[in-house]
Amino acid sequence: GVRSSCPATKPSMLNVHLVPHTHDDVGWLKTVDQYYHGDRNNIQHAGVQYILDSVIDQLQKDPARRFIYVETAFFYRWWRQQSQNTRRIVTQLVNEGRLEFINGGWCMSDEATTHYSAVIDQMTLGLRFLNDTFGECGRPRVAWHIDPFGHAREHASIFAQMGYDGFFFGRLDYQDKARRMKTKEMEMLWRASESLTPPLADLFTGVLPNGYNPPEGFCWDQSCNDAPIRDDPDLEDYNVDEIVQRFLNVSYNQAAFYKTNHIIMTMGSDFQYENANLWYKNMDKLIKYVNALQAKGSKVNVLYSTPSCYLQELNLANLTWPLKTDDFFPYADDAHDFWTGYFTSRPALKLYERLSNSRLQTCNQLEVLGGPKSTSGPFGEGDSDTMSKAMGVAQHHDAVSGTEKQHVAYDYARRLATGWAHCEVLVRNSLAVLSGSESPRVFCENLNISVCPLTESSQKVLYFSMNVYNPLGRTVSWPVRLPVNGSLYSVTDTKGKTVDSQVGNYVCMSFKLICNIYDMKSSSLLLLLSFLKVTFDDTTGLLSSLTNLETNQTIRLTQNFYWYNASSGNNKESRQPSGAYIFRPNSSDPFVINKTAEIQIVTVSSTVQEVTQWFSPWVSQVVRLYEGHRELELEWTVGPVPIADGLGKEVITRLDTDIESSDYFYTDSNGREVLERRKDYRPTWDLKQTEPIAGNYYPINSRAYIKDDKHQLTVVTDRSQGVSSIYNGSLEIMLHRRLLYDDFRGVGEPLSEPGEFFDGLVARGRLLLTLTPPNMAADVHRPLAQGMVLQPLLSFQDGTPLANTKLEVCRGSFSGLQDALPPAVHLLTLSQWDKDSVLIRLEHQYQAKESKTHSQPITVNLQVTHTFSFLLTLSNYILLQSNTDYPSPWEVTLNPMEIRTFLLQLRQL
Amino acid sequence: GVRSSCPATKPSMLNVHLVPHTHDDVGWLKTVDQYYHGDRNNIQHAGVQYILDSVIDQLQKDPARRFIYVETAFFYRWWRQQSQNTRRIVTQLVNEGRLEFINGGWCMSDEATTHYSAVIDQMTLGLRFLNDTFGECGRPRVAWHIDPFGHAREHASIFAQMGYDGFFFGRLDYQDKARRMKTKEMEMLWRASESLTPPLADLFTGVLPNGYNPPEGFCWDQSCNDAPIRDDPDLEDYNVDEIVQRFLNVSYNQAAFYKTNHIIMTMGSDFQYENANLWYKNMDKLIKYVNALQAKGSKVNVLYSTPSCYLQELNLANLTWPLKTDDFFPYADDAHDFWTGYFTSRPALKLYERLSNSRLQTCNQLEVLGGPKSTSGPFGEGDSDTMSKAMGVAQHHDAVSGTEKQHVAYDYARRLATGWAHCEVLVRNSLAVLSGSESPRVFCENLNISVCPLTESSQKVLYFSMNVYNPLGRTVSWPVRLPVNGSLYSVTDTKGKTVDSQVGNYVCMSFKLICNIYDMKSSSLLLLLSFLKVTFDDTTGLLSSLTNLETNQTIRLTQNFYWYNASSGNNKESRQPSGAYIFRPNSSDPFVINKTAEIQIVTVSSTVQEVTQWFSPWVSQVVRLYEGHRELELEWTVGPVPIADGLGKEVITRLDTDIESSDYFYTDSNGREVLERRKDYRPTWDLKQTEPIAGNYYPINSRAYIKDDKHQLTVVTDRSQGVSSIYNGSLEIMLHRRLLYDDFRGVGEPLSEPGEFFDGLVARGRLLLTLTPPNMAADVHRPLAQGMVLQPLLSFQDGTPLANTKLEVCRGSFSGLQDALPPAVHLLTLSQWDKDSVLIRLEHQYQAKESKTHSQPITVNLQVTHTFSFLLTLSNYILLQSNTDYPSPWEVTLNPMEIRTFLLQLRQL
Repeated sequence: GVRSSCPATKPSMLNVHLVPHTHDDVGWLKTVDQYYHGDRNNIQHAGVQYILDSVIDQLQKDPARRFIYVETAFFYRWWRQQSQNTRRIVTQLVNEGRLEFINGGWCMSDEATTHYSAVIDQMTLGLRFLNDTFGECGRPRVAWHIDPFGHAREHASIFAQMGYDGFFFGRLDYQDKARRMKTKEMEMLWRASESLTPPLADLFTGVLPNGYNPPEGFCWDQSCNDAPIRDDPDLEDYNVDEIVQRFLNVSYNQAAFYKTNHIIMTMGSDFQYENANLWYKNMDKLIKYVNALQAKGSKVNVLYSTPSCYLQELNLANLTWPLKTDDFFPYADDAHDFWTGYFTSRPALKLYERLSNSRLQTCNQLEVLGGPKSTSGPFGEGDSDTMSKAMGVAQHHDAVSGTEKQHVAYDYARRLATGWAHCEVLVRNSLAVLSGSESPRVFCENLNISVCPLTESSQKVLYFSMNVYNPLGRTVSWPVRLPVNGSLYSVTDTKGKTVDSQVGNYVCMSFKLICNIYDMKSSSLLLLLSFLKVTFDDTTGLLSSLTNLETNQTIRLTQNFYWYNASSGNNKESRQPSGAYIFRPNSSDPFVINKTAEIQIVTVSSTVQEVTQWFSPWVSQVVRLYEGHRELELEWTVGPVPIADGLGKEVITRLDTDIESSDYFYTDSNGREVLERRKDYRPTWDLKQTEPIAGNYYPINSRAYIKDDKHQLTVVTDRSQGVSSIYNGSLEIMLHRRLLYDDFRGVGEPLSEPGEFFDGLVARGRLLLTLTPPNMAADVHRPLAQGMVLQPLLSFQDGTPLANTKLEVCRGSFSGLQDALPPAVHLLTLSQWDKDSVLIRLEHQYQAKESKTHSQPITVNLQVTHTFSFLLTLSNYILLQSNTDYPSPWEVTLNPMEIRTFLLQLRQL
Repeated sequence: GVRSSCPATKPSMLNVHLVPHTHDDVGWLKTVDQYYHGDRNNIQHAGVQYILDSVIDQLQKDPARRFIYVETAFFYRWWRQQSQNTRRIVTQLVNEGRLEFINGGWCMSDEATTHYSAVIDQMTLGLRFLNDTFGECGRPRVAWHIDPFGHAREHASIFAQMGYDGFFFGRLDYQDKARRMKTKEMEMLWRASESLTPPLADLFTGVLPNGYNPPEGFCWDQSCNDAPIRDDPDLEDYNVDEIVQRFLNVSYNQAAFYKTNHIIMTMGSDFQYENANLWYKNMDKLIKYVNALQAKGSKVNVLYSTPSCYLQELNLANLTWPLKTDDFFPYADDAHDFWTGYFTSRPALKLYERLSNSRLQTCNQLEVLGGPKSTSGPFGEGDSDTMSKAMGVAQHHDAVSGTEKQHVAYDYARRLATGWAHCEVLVRNSLAVLSGSESPRVFCENLNISVCPLTESSQKVLYFSMNVYNPLGRTVSWPVRLPVNGSLYSVTDTKGKTVDSQVGNYVCMSFKLICNIYDMKSSSLLLLLSFLKVTFDDTTGLLSSLTNLETNQTIRLTQNFYWYNASSGNNKESRQPSGAYIFRPNSSDPFVINKTAEIQIVTVSSTVQEVTQWFSPWVSQVVRLYEGHRELELEWTVGPVPIADGLGKEVITRLDTDIESSDYFYTDSNGREVLERRKDYRPTWDLKQTEPIAGNYYPINSRAYIKDDKHQLTVVTDRSQGVSSIYNGSLEIMLHRRLLYDDFRGVGEPLSEPGEFFDGLVARGRLLLTLTPPNMAADVHRPLAQGMVLQPLLSFQDGTPLANTKLEVCRGSFSGLQDALPPAVHLLTLSQWDKDSVLIRLEHQYQAKESKTHSQPITVNLQVTHTFSFLLTLSNYILLQSNTDYPSPWEVTLNPMEIRTFLLQLRQL
């Protein structure tokens, strides 16, 4: 129905909806708290506390005034500092629709580099605060991603499933925008899933006319220099007539690109409204003088409004909107300005954010499983909130995107570390409850560089126990590699059974370490275990082929490392350099780092087989097979990227195969559904390709693949990256970037991350390669990717068997589940909602049609006896809430790609 | 008594008075209206309308908060745009002392380059508005000149006589400040007159600790970058303890320089408080956390306060303050940074302002004399308000001072022109009433360049009549020079009596005009009329002697023109260049423009004698004697100052005499009392002279002189200028400046004024020289200077005698006075106050002791029959108000330098 809080409009006129708004980055040039406080204004003048103070003051001055607020991370900070009286005033403004929350997540998430599970979490965090604080009137109706640099289909799908009425954004490819303006397709219906039944993932989507800025000449913020309305005829430069005429022109010009007699104008921008009086005073005058002309026959009606009120008018117009089914990547704002660099910028932060998600999910689960003692137990007070908020902030479109200043990147990482420190206590408490052992427990944070003091101690006879917590809904095989002192170890499981293991020097970190050099010249090298065989070229030391022994298929596979020479901006076509946002190689041909790799065979055994390849002092790789695994692991190490030659470098690895992929390749959207990509092509407009490399890059969050009729080579990655396929049979992944110039998009720094020991950051990561027939690929890559996202958590306890036997209640293993979930079902969320209830999200992790066996509806029974055994031990429970209605509250059917949310209310027995 | 609106203080503690304030220049980088609106924020972010909006909002949030407002020119603009509700709120804030007006003039006047009559007018304009609007609670108690660049004793005298309780300022010589800090003489009693009986001109005067800025690190305006108080321990960088400690340190440090346990901190600066929330929110926290430490033994008490509340505490301390009797000129903020350039900057604007004052006084007088028809009469609607306000604005310390941007200088001039246009109508109406003639009347604005279409018309027989209105209180002899067509003219007065006149080409404007060149080689040149003889050197063409024929005294007098080479800042001692504010010659030896002058004798007659000297294409002078006059007139023309050689030039004329002046010379203060100056010397501290020229410059507004036992050479000038005496017997006057660099004091432009026809402004002016025995000097220079300030207004009517006789009521002459005022009495003000009353200010224009005959008390009878005959024709009247009590309301006695103000209430008979 029509919302009473929306302003009246005039059907016979052109209605101009002025939407007063501020865009408050949750960290960018300053940290989120610096932005909140208004600290470090020498970097950027911005203080969110003052914005909210000022807006609330100004809204009270006139009931016609409206404001929308977006970023709950900031609003939350502000709200907790307000007096009861201010809170009462704000609540009334919200109830009357004068202050409206829009989007409402903890932040306005990045769309290219975020994983859907963290996006859903951060939306939940923000929306829950609004719901708890304001109830239904605080619920955002509209998704509002005015700044992210391209738009993911999965984001639209999530928004649709969350019940948003519509979605507005500001940035899209300039060619796309030009076409849409011409054809009046600035507003559309986005069908955001190929799996979900329409209209489940259908979302009205509008492109805003001026990005998220006001029309030129109408910016009245303290940060702007546009002329104020000078309506005192006794003072200099009375300009009412001129401004009104200009506004009428702007309105008619804009209306020409839209279908209805309603248009929207975003009256605000970055951190605006710190002194809201300037905006409102001038907009009051604008409205007064423009509408006064109606008495003289003008047909323009201007009013304060909100996106949801504007959207309501569009809905009332009852039009059919054009359909959109692909996404809005990549984003270019000019011919040589493709925002495809940030898909990879700050690879270490991107990995840390992804690992932190894994840890948060573990923390959440253990908070539930350990019960109340988790947050207040033998190891003190722990919580998952700190980590939730740190992750919420990290989803921001200048956080995990890598487009923030260096000091802000450090702040995001510090927040995640602090969050984890809080979680560590919780996890220790919870594991104490679950294991019955309160002896100290340590987490070895530096296993990636083979450091763990506990396991490395040099006692003559060393006993230690390791706990592995697997946050997945099913069993996983996970190789563990620990630094130890000595060569004789016995490894047993909880029942005393020996675990397959091997002791040896696994990693050669530098040339100083003496490794066993294999002479390539005399014999051909290959790695071979049960499922895979991989061969190396005798001459070059590069990979040469990959064979799936189960399906008996082989492809030629060459892999090497290259770098694109980043444009420095001194180019005759454009002055655009590569930077944190922009990828712009100055040539389509990357430099190869080395045509040959120096090979060091580290081990060839029945458990694991590894070959280390050295390409240069700053690029190396371990090629690795694990017994029982169906993926080939490429563990790359890149950095410090040298820049002494004065050249910025964008480092890729390229896989070249004999797969007949032609121009096609495939990339996931936020870690879920996969979209088809085609070189030099866009599905919705006739592309004029101006950047043959950068213009073909797309973001991946979890995987990419190429395929032909027979073969599909899938790469599962450990973090978000940029990928492309420039040649037939080829797939390239950008791994690291180090640049010398700022790219003029505001961050004001070249992306050149410092390292800890060297000049420049060293990044390390893993690519998991699977080779299958196309119709079997998903069965492998879906669980493989989920395993990469939710990794086991290792913790260690020092102790002799004697000490352990003292604790008679000690349990060696524990599962929260009655049994493994069905293969198609992913346990997306298990977290404590409040004292008496638990939030569970179950997800069908297959797309429609991608798996012969799994792309089917699947039913799960939520009864404790069937699924969540842990609940049995804790309490009785009832199903309180879910996202849709069911015939039975216990039987839940999931269709491909569906996510269902349940709030289980627990009652202590 | 103790004002109840002042905040409570703690006697046993150090009380820190935080004074929230904004300093709003009435024009500087932007025009006064641009500042008001917040227009042209690209030049400077400043919008006074928003400042007042914001402060009024914020004051309402907490009754403890205080704010002071200074510039009534802005407050007036704002007030007239406010709703009744806002006005009611503001009135309450004023009544409760939460908003306090300080200073309260139309602007914060410049002190070096303003004339006392215009200063009194602009103060009256502002204070009257406050009184009319708010009554007694709106009355400023404290004078507040925080920004002017040096301080005139006459200003202090005026403030004392106006009843201000005290005076605070920010700028004084850095050596003076250092000494005062050391000796705790930052606060003092200024005895501001040598003539008025103490305490008539005594004024408590305080030097503010940080100019008018907050202590370093405590600026919380939107324009500042200091860290906000971050008092949420859950957010980053909690800094309360650090800020509190820093504040305590700052407070104790400052207290060491002051005598009481009260100190003042100015919490604001230029155009601050546009978003007052930032300031108040952080000051609220500062006060809360600093005072919270009192519970732990801290002895610092910080509070919101105002200058008048601070002053009240000082008064309660009942101390004896050190006495100050000289002034605060010149002002230097560093060793090579003397703010003595602005004494002369923009000489044409300075003249135009002075002429405008004369016109405004005439306009005011004629408004009274012409009665109600003046403002609404045969020539339409006229008013004096527009001119009053334009003059009020022009007194600002970046207006007549010449330190504004060029476009702002144009704006001041435009305002004065507009003001005069309104006055012209009034004057036409008034003269129509007074003359009985309603025939058209024109004012020839371009007589200075010998243009007046009416008098130049080429009819065969031309009749025109000229009206001369003399605004002085006595008869004056005033030569009039008109351009005419033809050589046979008859000039008669109102009674038909022939007036002494002469027809000829008086002015040679360029070399193209053929003038009669006198051969200097063959004969000696002299000018000689009844009172003076002046001789020229045969060889050089320069003046050689001046003789007063009455007193029979002769001095050697050489005069020439020179230019100081302005420092460009590339100097090893300092990077300071000369600019709009700063005078810094790069050598103490000026370049002579020409050692010899080319002489053109224009006329030698019994009425007027003139010699024109050409020094260069851009420097010339007319040396002139008028019959019956006791002064030698030097009419100089300087410009366009050439800068093609890349050298900035500061042009002076220097008078070299055989007067044994030693290091002494004398300069007036704002056109009234004269102060003794001494080269390389300051009366109140041991000067270390670092700029031998610039450090010896002082401002004059009306006159300067040098003297010895026998002779006094006095120079009366037509505008404010900078003068010095570098050599014995020498007096130099800076006439014009054209510079190539900005001087880093904010204006951001080099002072290089464009001219109308040439590249660079041409300035022209007059110096009037009198030679007398010292004890007779004042008798000549006092009336001479007043005659220069209040010049006759000429107006012209076309017409034949026939046409004139038609108007039988036509009166040829009229006087508003029964008789000339006594020689010591100056009619300072005669203006319409409101419909029923008239404001009159009478002034004793002599200092004590300077005149044997006139430096005595003098009594004037205000009865119409004795003095103001015009009142007789208009109405009955009563004496309503005056600045002191009298035994008789009609008999008014004036002591030397005393000004008395009367409001005469008129009753129509």
